[in-house]
Amino acid sequence: MINYKLKIEYDGTGYMGWQRLENKDTIQGKIEQVLSKLYDHKIEIHGAGRTDAGVHAVGQIANFKAKPCKSTKEIQNYLNRYLPESIAVTEVSEADERFHSRLNAKEKIYRYRILNSPIYNVFNRRYVHKVSMPLDLNKMKEGAGYFVGQHDFKAFCSNKKLKKSSVREIYAVDIEKVGDEISITYRGNGFLYNMVRIMTGTLIDVGLGKTEPWEIPNIIASKNREKAGETAPAKGLTLMEVIY
Amino acid sequence: MINYKLKIEYDGTGYMGWQRLENKDTIQGKIEQVLSKLYDHKIEIHGAGRTDAGVHAVGQIANFKAKPCKSTKEIQNYLNRYLPESIAVTEVSEADERFHSRLNAKEKIYRYRILNSPIYNVFNRRYVHKVSMPLDLNKMKEGAGYFVGQHDFKAFCSNKKLKKSSVREIYAVDIEKVGDEISITYRGNGFLYNMVRIMTGTLIDVGLGKTEPWEIPNIIASKNREKAGETAPAKGLTLMEVIY
Repeated sequence: MINYKLKIEYDGTGYMGWQRLENKDTIQGKIEQVLSKLYDHKIEIHGAGRTDAGVHAVGQIANFKAKPCKSTKEIQNYLNRYLPESIAVTEVSEADERFHSRLNAKEKIYRYRILNSPIYNVFNRRYVHKVSMPLDLNKMKEGAGYFVGQHDFKAFCSNKKLKKSSVREIYAVDIEKVGDEISITYRGNGFLYNMVRIMTGTLIDVGLGKTEPWEIPNIIASKNREKAGETAPAKGLTLMEVIY
Repeated sequence: MINYKLKIEYDGTGYMGWQRLENKDTIQGKIEQVLSKLYDHKIEIHGAGRTDAGVHAVGQIANFKAKPCKSTKEIQNYLNRYLPESIAVTEVSEADERFHSRLNAKEKIYRYRILNSPIYNVFNRRYVHKVSMPLDLNKMKEGAGYFVGQHDFKAFCSNKKLKKSSVREIYAVDIEKVGDEISITYRGNGFLYNMVRIMTGTLIDVGLGKTEPWEIPNIIASKNREKAGETAPAKGLTLMEVIY
């Protein structure tokens, strides 16, 4: 058996997220469907990040095991021919037999895009969250700094029944503004359910002046989801890269 | 009465084009609907370019006359509030009373985007035409040069019953490649029905080696639509700017 590694790009609009769900359109489901047709038997793939409904990716990684009867080029061409236009497989390679896309991931990079304007950009509207009121970039940058480091991010997790550790390490949170668009890039060793979107919702509150930057350490320390900001909409979020 | 000038951006996907059509979704129709609601009586607007079904714009210009009871800011806010997300009014200003968006246009700039790759870019797929086979950029640039100047472009017009002159002047055709994307920017004093898309279809044939660059003057001289290439798909085309 060969362990194949896939790099996948998708527009998450209209999908119920990465993870396979009976009778629902999901990215994993679509890819498994096409691969199972190619190999004429059921193929299961493992994704590095279980992106939520509506979240996009430019660098999702997945792997699957199959007999060595197809070349990586054949696999890629077949996938891109039969997948919907909203999903593209940009690389197929042979990986080490022990490679697991999720368990071996050392770092993930997510980007959240905010359009800070009262007017939509009609071409990006599916990929950015529009905030009409002006955001204070310096305050947001100051607030973002408090996320960096190893913390218990329980206050930034939507899963209330989480039994495993909610400690994660954030390596960097970079905020850039180009034109009307603010992008927040998060790098970390892992992210809890909705964590990036809740951190973003909190940083938007900081940008609007509803929350002061120095309140963020208190929110983290509270371990209370109620203290953090709202979960920012899925459509602004993109999984950029997974590092091994 | 005040003559208002609008600058409009739209994602033409799913619209039947600019021009108002009974019971069809058109850009002009949508804008007139919202303006008529704002003024509580029928408002008609004039667009600079009658873009086809599926064609996009970042700099469409239109004008309309109305009583001076609303400020330009009020008009813009109202339009952006009630228009679909796929249409945005990026500027509203007061124009000279004799200003007519179409009749006074001195130059129009259109851009055609081609993705020269076997793999879709999932985020741009509504705005680029995908050509899987490699295109020879140098041949396309050579071919494009023959369009520049004043010519009878009858061979590049889909309207067979055209009674008015089909002579137009092309100021420049610039071809650039960034990554996998080739963009062709056309500047001219005016364009016939489907002209940019037929020129693009012909340049794609040149890039594929089906047509030689030096055949373009012969195609122009033939004045025969059958000699030119296919009409390239609408979705790759965007009206960039109208110059007065």
